[in-house]
Amino acid sequence: MRYGFVGLGQMGAPMAANLAAAQDVKVLDLSEDAIKAAVRAGASAVSSLKDFADIGVLFLCLPNGGIVEKSLFDKTNGIAKFLSPNTIVVDTSTIEYSLTLSIGDRLDALGLRFLDAPVSGMWKRAQDGTLTMMIGGETDIVEDLRPALSTMADRILHTGAVGSGQLTKLINQLLFDINVAALAEILPMAKKLGLDPENTAEVVNSGTGRSYASEYFIPQILEGTFDTGYPLQSAYKDLISGAEISARYQIPAPVLAAATSTYQQALLEGHGAKDKGAMVLVYERLLGVNCRKSSVEDTTND
Amino acid sequence: MRYGFVGLGQMGAPMAANLAAAQDVKVLDLSEDAIKAAVRAGASAVSSLKDFADIGVLFLCLPNGGIVEKSLFDKTNGIAKFLSPNTIVVDTSTIEYSLTLSIGDRLDALGLRFLDAPVSGMWKRAQDGTLTMMIGGETDIVEDLRPALSTMADRILHTGAVGSGQLTKLINQLLFDINVAALAEILPMAKKLGLDPENTAEVVNSGTGRSYASEYFIPQILEGTFDTGYPLQSAYKDLISGAEISARYQIPAPVLAAATSTYQQALLEGHGAKDKGAMVLVYERLLGVNCRKSSVEDTTND
Amino acid sequence: MRYGFVGLGQMGAPMAANLAAAQDVKVLDLSEDAIKAAVRAGASAVSSLKDFADIGVLFLCLPNGGIVEKSLFDKTNGIAKFLSPNTIVVDTSTIEYSLTLSIGDRLDALGLRFLDAPVSGMWKRAQDGTLTMMIGGETDIVEDLRPALSTMADRILHTGAVGSGQLTKLINQLLFDINVAALAEILPMAKKLGLDPENTAEVVNSGTGRSYASEYFIPQILEGTFDTGYPLQSAYKDLISGAEISARYQIPAPVLAAATSTYQQALLEGHGAKDKGAMVLVYERLLGVNCRKSSVEDTTND
Amino acid sequence: MRYGFVGLGQMGAPMAANLAAAQDVKVLDLSEDAIKAAVRAGASAVSSLKDFADIGVLFLCLPNGGIVEKSLFDKTNGIAKFLSPNTIVVDTSTIEYSLTLSIGDRLDALGLRFLDAPVSGMWKRAQDGTLTMMIGGETDIVEDLRPALSTMADRILHTGAVGSGQLTKLINQLLFDINVAALAEILPMAKKLGLDPENTAEVVNSGTGRSYASEYFIPQILEGTFDTGYPLQSAYKDLISGAEISARYQIPAPVLAAATSTYQQALLEGHGAKDKGAMVLVYERLLGVNCRKSSVEDTTND
Ligand SMILES: NC(=O)C1=CN([C@@H]2O[C@H](COP(=O)(O)OP(=O)(O)OC[C@H]3O[C@@H](n4cnc5c(N)ncnc54)[C@H](OP(=O)(O)O)[C@@H]3O)[C@@H](O)[C@H]2O)C=CC1
Ligand SMILES: NC(=O)C1=CN([C@@H]2O[C@H](COP(=O)(O)OP(=O)(O)OC[C@H]3O[C@@H](n4cnc5c(N)ncnc54)[C@H](OP(=O)(O)O)[C@@H]3O)[C@@H](O)[C@H]2O)C=CC1
Ligand SMILES: NC(=O)C1=CN([C@@H]2O[C@H](COP(=O)(O)OP(=O)(O)OC[C@H]3O[C@@H](n4cnc5c(N)ncnc54)[C@H](OP(=O)(O)O)[C@@H]3O)[C@@H](O)[C@H]2O)C=CC1
Repeated sequence: MRYGFVGLGQMGAPMAANLAAAQDVKVLDLSEDAIKAAVRAGASAVSSLKDFADIGVLFLCLPNGGIVEKSLFDKTNGIAKFLSPNTIVVDTSTIEYSLTLSIGDRLDALGLRFLDAPVSGMWKRAQDGTLTMMIGGETDIVEDLRPALSTMADRILHTGAVGSGQLTKLINQLLFDINVAALAEILPMAKKLGLDPENTAEVVNSGTGRSYASEYFIPQILEGTFDTGYPLQSAYKDLISGAEISARYQIPAPVLAAATSTYQQALLEGHGAKDKGAMVLVYERLLGVNCRKSSVEDTTND
Repeated sequence: MRYGFVGLGQMGAPMAANLAAAQDVKVLDLSEDAIKAAVRAGASAVSSLKDFADIGVLFLCLPNGGIVEKSLFDKTNGIAKFLSPNTIVVDTSTIEYSLTLSIGDRLDALGLRFLDAPVSGMWKRAQDGTLTMMIGGETDIVEDLRPALSTMADRILHTGAVGSGQLTKLINQLLFDINVAALAEILPMAKKLGLDPENTAEVVNSGTGRSYASEYFIPQILEGTFDTGYPLQSAYKDLISGAEISARYQIPAPVLAAATSTYQQALLEGHGAKDKGAMVLVYERLLGVNCRKSSVEDTTND
Repeated sequence: MRYGFVGLGQMGAPMAANLAAAQDVKVLDLSEDAIKAAVRAGASAVSSLKDFADIGVLFLCLPNGGIVEKSLFDKTNGIAKFLSPNTIVVDTSTIEYSLTLSIGDRLDALGLRFLDAPVSGMWKRAQDGTLTMMIGGETDIVEDLRPALSTMADRILHTGAVGSGQLTKLINQLLFDINVAALAEILPMAKKLGLDPENTAEVVNSGTGRSYASEYFIPQILEGTFDTGYPLQSAYKDLISGAEISARYQIPAPVLAAATSTYQQALLEGHGAKDKGAMVLVYERLLGVNCRKSSVEDTTND
Repeated sequence: MRYGFVGLGQMGAPMAANLAAAQDVKVLDLSEDAIKAAVRAGASAVSSLKDFADIGVLFLCLPNGGIVEKSLFDKTNGIAKFLSPNTIVVDTSTIEYSLTLSIGDRLDALGLRFLDAPVSGMWKRAQDGTLTMMIGGETDIVEDLRPALSTMADRILHTGAVGSGQLTKLINQLLFDINVAALAEILPMAKKLGLDPENTAEVVNSGTGRSYASEYFIPQILEGTFDTGYPLQSAYKDLISGAEISARYQIPAPVLAAATSTYQQALLEGHGAKDKGAMVLVYERLLGVNCRKSSVEDTTND
C-alpha cells in the first residue's frame, strides 16, 4: 500500500515522518523546505498531482476547513480528481463538523472513501507518535488502516460515523475553552478583591478548581507569557462549530455561549495572535488589574 | 495554651482529634457521640460554656455562616461572651465573605481577635492532617498559631486581611463549579450528537478538556453515582458569595453567572442532596439522553 | 408587466390578492383552495411552470428557507429554470441570511435578478396592504418595483445590498425575542417573590419595562393563552441566524445567547407549537408557580 | 394629621410641594435652597429634629438605601428616635429589597409603622402628581393614607406586605435594564453588518422589537445624547437587588445576568454618569462602530 500526505506543518511534518519510517509515503506541501525535510525522513516528493494516482490512502493535515476543501476540490488543483476510485482520504485536520459532513458527501459522490481523524496532543506527542486520534467513518476502513495510524497515534478511538471524530475532538476543545474562560474572569476578580495571584495559583492548582487549563495557563499568566499555545484566532473555528451545533440542533449551551463572548471579546481587543491564556487580558483591562507575579513587570495592557 | 473546638462533624472531628493529639483541647458539639469520640482521641468535653473562659484559641468548624453566627453571638448561648479578652477565634468553616467581615467586626468590638481559615481537601486529608488552609487575618496571630494549625494542615497560606481566607477558597470553588457546569451541558450535548459517553470520557480525561471536575465526576456520571461528594445544597453558599461579590463590587462574571443558573436549575429540579455531578441531570432531562456507560441501566430521570 | 406569486398562505394570500387588484398575477400554491381564493381575487392560476416564462417579477412567500430553495432550484420542479433572463425574483419570506446570500448568487449565475424583501406586520396588515417591507438589492430594481410593492406595504425600506432586508428584519426579531425571554424569567420571579401577576402586569405595561412583547404577551399569559402568535418552532430560524452571525462575524451577543437558551428550553419542553409567550412556561415549571390572573385556572404545567 | 417630608431633590421637591398644597407638611433637606423652595410651596421648615415629634406620617425621598438607613437610624441624627409611637414612615425612595425588610424590622422594634412606597415616572409626572406608586405594608395604613398619597400619585397599587412595593418596582426596572442591554448589543451588531442605524431605528420602533427602552433611547443614541435619564451608577442598585434576589432565593435569571454584565462593563468603562443608553458604547467600542445618524459626528469613543 502506498500513502500520500498533504500538509507538513507543525503537526503534519512529524506525523508524515513517523509514517514514512514504516511505509512508502508521497508528500506535498507549499513549502519546499518542509518537503525536503520529509524526504530526508524517508518520504518521496510528488512532482505532479498525477503522482497521487497510485496511492491507496491520502492523509491531510491542513490549517483549517477552507484549505482542506480547496486542496481537495479546487477546480484546477483539487487533488480529489487525481485519486483512483476507492482511495481513502483521511483528514487529520481539525475542521468544522458541518464541513466535514459535506466533504464526506462530495468524496462519496466521486467514488472515494473518507475518514475524519483529528488528533490531539501537541507537537511533542506528534513527534513521539503518541497522539490521540479520534476517527469517524466505517469500521472496516479504520481497522485496515490501524497499522498505519499507529505510527502516529497510540490512542486510536473509533467514535462512530463520518463527522464523529471531529465532534469528539470538539467536545474536548469546548470544555477546554470554557475552563480557560472561567480563569479569564475569576483570576482578575481575585486580584481585584486584593488576593495575591501567586497564592491564588497555588490554591487553585492544588485544589478542586484545577484543570489542564489552569495548570498550563496560570503559570504563564503569572509570567505575562501569552505566546506558547495555539493562537486564539486559529482555534476560533471550534467555537463556530459549537455555536452552530447548539443553534442547528436546538441544544442549549449557556455556559459555552458566555465563554464564547469572552473569547470573541479577546479577538476584538486584538489578542487573536496570542494563545488562549490571553483571554485573561479582557478582564484585566476591564477591572484595571493584572495577574502577574510580583516580580514580573506587566506591560500587556499598556 | 489551651484550645477550644466547636463542631465535630465530618471535617471537624478529625481536625479536633489531630489537634488534641498535640494540645489540650476542649470540645463542643450538638452530638453526644461526636463528643465521646473526641474525648477518646484525647480531648476533654466542656460541661458549660463558662469552661471556655481559660482557652486562648477557639476553633469553629460548622456547616454554614448562619450557624457560625448563632454559635458565637446567640443572645443566650453565644460563646463569644464567655471568652476572655484577646482570645483568638479561628473559623475553619466555609462561609460567606460578607458575613466573615461582619463577624470579624463584631468580635473586634468585643475585644476578641479573629482569623478566617477555611480548609480544602476532603475527609481523608482532614484525617491525615494534610488539609490546605487559607488564612485571613493579622500576620503575628497566624505565626503564633502555626504549630497548632500544622497538626491539621500541611499547606498553610496566609492570604491577607480578615476575609481573604474565605475569598481565596471561594475563588477555587467558583472555578470548580464552572468546570462542573461545563461538563453538565457539554457531555449530554455529546451524547445527543451520537457520541458514546465512554469514548468522550476517555478523550476528555486524557486531553486538554480535563479538570479535577472531569476526573472526579465523569467516572461517576458514567456509573450513575451522584452521592459521593459535598451536596449541591450545602455548597450553594459559594455561589451566593460569588453573585454578591460580582454585584457589590461591579465585577462582571458572565461565565460564572451562566454556571450559577445551571446549578440553581439542578436545585430546583430536586437534586440538592446529590453531589455536584448531578448538574448533568439538568441537561440529560432537557435533551432526553443519559450519559451512563452502556452497561449501566439509568433510572435517574425516570 | 406580468407577475407571479408563489405561496398563498396566511401572509401570501392577502399579499397576492392586493397585488392582483392592480396587476396581472399568476399564482401557485400546494393548496387548490388557496389558488381558487386567489383566482376569485383576480389572479390567474398557472397550469404548468412553463406559464411563468412571460412574467417579469416572481414573488415568493414561503414558510422557510429550505422551501424557498427547493421551490426555486429543485432538480425537476424548480421554478428558476422556467424563468426568462432578467426576471426579478422577490423573496418576501423570512429566511436565514446566509441562505439568502447563496440564493442571490445562484440566481445571478442563472442570469436572474433578486431582491430579499421580508415583511413585518401580521395577517391583518397584510390584508390592509400596510405591511412594513425591508428590501435588500439594487436600487434601480427597487425603484422599478415600488408601485407593485406599494399594493402590499406602506412602509418600504431599501436597506442596502442583497441580504440586508433579511438582516434588518432579523435585528427586529432578535430584540423581540430577547424582550420575550426577559418576561419569561422575570414574571415568574415576581410571582415566586409573592407579587400578584395582575399588579405586576399593570406596573410593567404602564412603566419603563414595557415593550411590544409585554403589551402583547402579558395579557395572554395572565389568561393562559399561548396560541395567538407565530409558533416558537417556526420563528426559531431567526435564532439560528442570530447565532450563526454572532459566531461567523465574531460579534459577542451574550444577552441574545442567554435568551436563545430559554427559547431552546421551551422547544425542548414541548412548547414549539405555542407562541413565544410560552417561553414563560419554562420558568413557571422550574419555580413551581404560574402567572395566571386569579380568576384563571391554570393547567399548563400539569 | 401633620406630615414630615425628608429629601427635596428632583423627585422629592415636587412630591412635597403637591402634598403641602393639601396638608400641613414639615420638610427637611441638606440643601437650604430646597427647603426655601418647599416653604414657598406651603411647607414649613423644621428647626430641629424634635419638631418631628408631632407628625403622624414621615415621608422619605432619598437617593439610596444607605442614606435612608442613616437618616433614620444614625446614632446622633437619626430621625426615628424623635418620632412618636405609631408614627408611619413612608419610604418613597427606590432602595434594595433586603434593606427595606431590615428597615421595616428596625422601625417595628421601635414601635413605628412602615410602608415602602417607591414611585415610577420621572420629574414631570412628580410635578403633575401623576406618579405610579407601588406600596408594601398593611392594608389599613395604605387606606388611611390614600388621600395624602393621591396628591402625588394617580396610580396607587397596594402590592402586599412590606418590601413588595420595592419588589414590584424592581421587576419593572429589571425588564427595562434587560431591554436596554438588548439594544446595546443588537444595534452595534446591525451597524457592523452594514445596516444604516436610522433604518434599523425605524424598523425596530415600528415593529415587534420596540420597547419603552427603544423608543426612549434609540433616538438619543442616533444623536449621541447620553445625559437625559437617570445615571447608570445611580440605578445600579436595582441590579444589585436583582442579583441578590436571584442568588438568595435560588431563582435562575440568565438573561438578567447577561444584561448585568453589560451594565457593569459600561460602569467599568467610565460611563456611570451617563444614562442607560450609554450601555451601547460598550459594544460600539468592541466592534469599532457607532450608531449615530449620518449627520451626527461621533466623538464618544475617541
Ligand atoms: N465536608 C467536606 O468535604 C468539606 C467541608 N468543609 C467545610 O467545613 C465546614 C464543616 O463541614 P462538615 O464537617 O462537612 O459539616 P458537618 O455538618 O459534618 O459538621 C458540622 C458539625 O457541627 C455541629 N454543630 C452544628 N451546630 C452546632 C452548634 N450550634 N454548636 C455546636 N456544634 C454544632 C454538627 O452537629 P450535628 O451533626 O449534631 O448537627 C456537626 O457535628 C463547613 O463549613 C464546610 O463547608 C471544607 C472542606 C471540605
Ligand atoms: N405569519 C406571520 O405572522 C408572518 C409571517 N412572515 C413570513 O412570511 C412567510 C410566509 O409565512 P406564512 O404565510 O405564515 O406561512 P404559511 O405556512 O401560512 O404559508 C406558506 C404557503 O406556501 C405554500 N407552499 C409551501 N411549499 C410550497 C411549494 N413548494 N410551492 C408552492 N407553495 C408552497 C403552503 O402551502 P400548504 O399550506 O399547502 O403547505 C402555504 O400555502 C414566512 O417566511 C414567515 O416567516 C412574516 C411576517 C409575519
Ligand atoms: N429621578 C428620577 O427620575 C426618579 C427617582 N426615583 C427615586 O427617588 C429617590 C430620590 O431620587 P431623586 O429625587 O432623583 O434624588 P436627588 O439626589 O435629586 O434628591 C435627594 C435629596 O435628598 C437630600 N438628602 C440627601 N441626604 C439627606 C439627609 N441625610 N437628610 C435630608 N436630606 C438628604 C439631597 O440633598 P442634597 O442634594 O443637598 O444632597 C437631595 O435634595 C431615589 O431613591 C430614586 O431612585 C424614582 C423614580 C424616578
